[in-house]
Amino acid sequence: MSEKKIVIIGGVAGGATAAARLRRLDERAHIVILERSGYVSYANCGLPYYVGGTITDRSKLTLQTPESFRARFNIDVHVHQEAVSIDRAQQVVHVRNLEDKSTYDEPYDELILSPGARAVVPPLPGVDSERLFTLRTVEDTFAIHDFIERAQAKRATVVGAGFIGLEMTENLCERGIDVTLVQRDPQAMLPIDADMAPFVHNELRRNGVELHLNATVTGFVEKDDALVTQLADGQKFAADLVILAIGVTPDSTLAKDAGLELGLRGSIRVDEHLRTSDSHIFAVGDAIEVRHVVTGRPALIALAGPANKQGRIAADNICGRKTTFTGSQGSSVLKLFDLTITSTGLNARQAAQVGIDFDAVVLSPASHATYYPGAGSMTLKVLFERSGERRGRIIGAQIVGTDGADKRIDVLATAIRAQMGASDLTELDLAYAPPYSSAKDPVNMAGYLIENILDGLVKQVSWGEATNLPEDAVLVDVRTPGEVARGGIEGSLRIPLDELRDRTGELPRDKTLYVHCQSGLRSYVACRMLSQLGFSCANVAGGYGFYAASALDRALAGNAAGPCGMVS
Amino acid sequence: MSEKKIVIIGGVAGGATAAARLRRLDERAHIVILERSGYVSYANCGLPYYVGGTITDRSKLTLQTPESFRARFNIDVHVHQEAVSIDRAQQVVHVRNLEDKSTYDEPYDELILSPGARAVVPPLPGVDSERLFTLRTVEDTFAIHDFIERAQAKRATVVGAGFIGLEMTENLCERGIDVTLVQRDPQAMLPIDADMAPFVHNELRRNGVELHLNATVTGFVEKDDALVTQLADGQKFAADLVILAIGVTPDSTLAKDAGLELGLRGSIRVDEHLRTSDSHIFAVGDAIEVRHVVTGRPALIALAGPANKQGRIAADNICGRKTTFTGSQGSSVLKLFDLTITSTGLNARQAAQVGIDFDAVVLSPASHATYYPGAGSMTLKVLFERSGERRGRIIGAQIVGTDGADKRIDVLATAIRAQMGASDLTELDLAYAPPYSSAKDPVNMAGYLIENILDGLVKQVSWGEATNLPEDAVLVDVRTPGEVARGGIEGSLRIPLDELRDRTGELPRDKTLYVHCQSGLRSYVACRMLSQLGFSCANVAGGYGFYAASALDRALAGNAAGPCGMVS
Repeated sequence: MSEKKIVIIGGVAGGATAAARLRRLDERAHIVILERSGYVSYANCGLPYYVGGTITDRSKLTLQTPESFRARFNIDVHVHQEAVSIDRAQQVVHVRNLEDKSTYDEPYDELILSPGARAVVPPLPGVDSERLFTLRTVEDTFAIHDFIERAQAKRATVVGAGFIGLEMTENLCERGIDVTLVQRDPQAMLPIDADMAPFVHNELRRNGVELHLNATVTGFVEKDDALVTQLADGQKFAADLVILAIGVTPDSTLAKDAGLELGLRGSIRVDEHLRTSDSHIFAVGDAIEVRHVVTGRPALIALAGPANKQGRIAADNICGRKTTFTGSQGSSVLKLFDLTITSTGLNARQAAQVGIDFDAVVLSPASHATYYPGAGSMTLKVLFERSGERRGRIIGAQIVGTDGADKRIDVLATAIRAQMGASDLTELDLAYAPPYSSAKDPVNMAGYLIENILDGLVKQVSWGEATNLPEDAVLVDVRTPGEVARGGIEGSLRIPLDELRDRTGELPRDKTLYVHCQSGLRSYVACRMLSQLGFSCANVAGGYGFYAASALDRALAGNAAGPCGMVS
Repeated sequence: MSEKKIVIIGGVAGGATAAARLRRLDERAHIVILERSGYVSYANCGLPYYVGGTITDRSKLTLQTPESFRARFNIDVHVHQEAVSIDRAQQVVHVRNLEDKSTYDEPYDELILSPGARAVVPPLPGVDSERLFTLRTVEDTFAIHDFIERAQAKRATVVGAGFIGLEMTENLCERGIDVTLVQRDPQAMLPIDADMAPFVHNELRRNGVELHLNATVTGFVEKDDALVTQLADGQKFAADLVILAIGVTPDSTLAKDAGLELGLRGSIRVDEHLRTSDSHIFAVGDAIEVRHVVTGRPALIALAGPANKQGRIAADNICGRKTTFTGSQGSSVLKLFDLTITSTGLNARQAAQVGIDFDAVVLSPASHATYYPGAGSMTLKVLFERSGERRGRIIGAQIVGTDGADKRIDVLATAIRAQMGASDLTELDLAYAPPYSSAKDPVNMAGYLIENILDGLVKQVSWGEATNLPEDAVLVDVRTPGEVARGGIEGSLRIPLDELRDRTGELPRDKTLYVHCQSGLRSYVACRMLSQLGFSCANVAGGYGFYAASALDRALAGNAAGPCGMVS
């Protein structure tokens, strides 16, 4: 084997994985990692949990050290080393030692760029305050943690309600800190659709978070031992510290300066072997442009899973193994207090953007057979192609719920990867016993619902459509009186499903009936009955449970909640 | 629409599902269910948990009643009605009313057979004792429950360590009853392989179950208010009651007597539309022969999931919708105390039976990132084709573990359904956050391990092979001294992985090195290093953890445990 020298810039997920795989494939190669921060291969996704105290041991965040990497893999790990520029002609990286400010050259035969992404910091007034933090590295984490301890922080403002913003919100609450969460968009957690977001909003408020949506930050002002976040509408929130978590951007300066071809939003463009436009330079992780599995189009997907896979593939190709990275579909999961929020593939906004004619089903299954104790609930939305050659193909899924949400999203992610359609979902032979599932798993059920729509057995409308109807539209609620007593929609005709067959005389035959129940299943049974009896009807997707989450969200919007802790 | 009359024999999983779907598709049909027992659409898989007290409310087991079925679906449900014979020419079922012993004829246009399977009861002496029970129906459950209460049972013998036998064992223990579990085969839980079974055996013993394997029952004798189970080897176990759970057999008497074509082991043969050899008779559920998804061959798979799917498909076809049942793969899951035991597709015995050239990987991943608290452990075995056109195709998987086992088996079940291979597993984009998973999910890891074997990067042997080697074979343990101190294999050379590169001088170059660690991952790294340095070596699949489970099983085999409750 060659004794080639491979330099890796960035020693976290993708870079560290690449280094380990390189060593396994080539015992003789000279492998060098240059890492700007003081840590390599650290528990990136665990950082918020150190702030919250779920992880208390600093060493757990930094399980691998330069020394352990050397001992196991014979890799030269240099921390606090910043790659300043790349001389592609000479195959040399110019490096600055951040400890003594010296500079030197690191020659390479093959180079892997794993620079990651940077936290976006807009040029707002006051953004350089020492009370304002972003979270990306171990050092960031320790800085936030130490500031909180030192300042005995009681109040925090989190700007941005994406992954990092929500994880930080939860963890700050876990420490007993009051959190104001400010989000520019009308919803938190953009990977899920607007109609799923109310569950997230309600969970935040239930745990005492003061949530402000549609809120644009104009700047920050230090005042009286606090940092005041100012909104465009004039609102101001004073806090001991501010976490800015409005997103990340590919850290591609080095690649750009070296003249490498760039892609979407300044990301590094690579081929399927993760090779950049320079045949001796590979790139992996959050900084690169990938192919989206569902659309086939370029996408930016900054997640740890793909980064790890990519590191291995870059190493393979450097060692002559022609493996390929075939794309990502953005599968993600987030714990938010008692909720699991998870999605894969395209959401409605993304599907519309690429011009896919799609529809979606919404269901609210239990996590396992309800006669066995401890079943959790979830709301599951599955998007599918409504027309064309791939009619019925599953293109995306989202779940907000408790137990079992992560299981179903992974099954759906696998189904999407396999290009499955609705009937494939119905056929999946999943493992069932009462403590784990139902004989018809929620994924099977989603398939059935989609089939029924595609086969024309039922017409479906969303709550958005059902509550914006002409005056003469008729809403029919087929839930039991007990359920209705706990909440219902004004003006609905109320006939329990089990009485419906005998009471059709109460329903108008000249109008469309918009039928709902709690989750959408009984109303589907009602629609089948009614349509065969000559009524015009449509099933309202998601049922009253879905409507109620949204209604609660609207009712509470703008209402300040108390300090962290249950308010319900 | 027609007003056809459809008779369904058997009103549990498949039959009840068929009835409900029939009604949704045809509001005018006359639908009749004939059910031999006193209950329909009951919580079949929940029955053992009523005995154990996890489910305390009888009404939870029997959520649907004839009345509720009529109210919602306008279906005539007749319980305690036994279909005695079918006159196919006249399209009539002869029925006996079990309440008043009268008989009558029930004509049909279309007939669905959903008779299920019967518990196997061998013609052994004493098998008719009133202290001996099988478990299939709600009545069986109540009989066991009431007997235990009445007799204040303290000791039970369970014969058979499959699904029902193990669930009953757990539930009897939950009630504080001492259980002796007798299994004819050398292992419990035949769906998993012999090398995975020690985890099951150890869990049983850890919970105080007295386990007897390789134990053939010759008969039962009543003596002194007890039923004595007698084994071929002379052992005798007295108990207040015996649960006989040695398997089920298709209940196809009716079909056979009607001259319908039969399949494997007396099952009812159906086409892909679930039509029997009589075009007006369909059959679903545990009584039918299905196509195995992996082998394409006929199989018997008595599980609730497929039965429910089949009921729907039979109804579709009766209503002119040409849906098909494309097969089962036997996905199953069982809770046993703190363990989850789950499998899908083929096990080693089944793969060998159909002549597939296969190999398997064994890994012991954590359920989620170990730096986040609460991770469980699991042992995951994945079988794949080793040669031929479909080299690398995943053909089966088994997991024994705690959290997250059911998730991974469902992902693997979906992958098997999609005919995925090893590299497809590596590419799966699954949802990751520290509370739920690892950046490389166990399913991805299984794919990597298989790829490494198929690519010739590592040679693998099983513990069976590694511990049956010629005398000059060298076992190398690369775990840390701390791990070794907690247990290791006599005679292994012990060199921690992180010291291995500097200590290769201690290893013989003329012999094959059999390298192991705790789970198989570090030993893989060691094998890559050593093979590149000119050593001949093989990785021992599953690592010391896998070996230790088996060693503990062997050590405890035959040792009687104490009463239920932890013994470790």
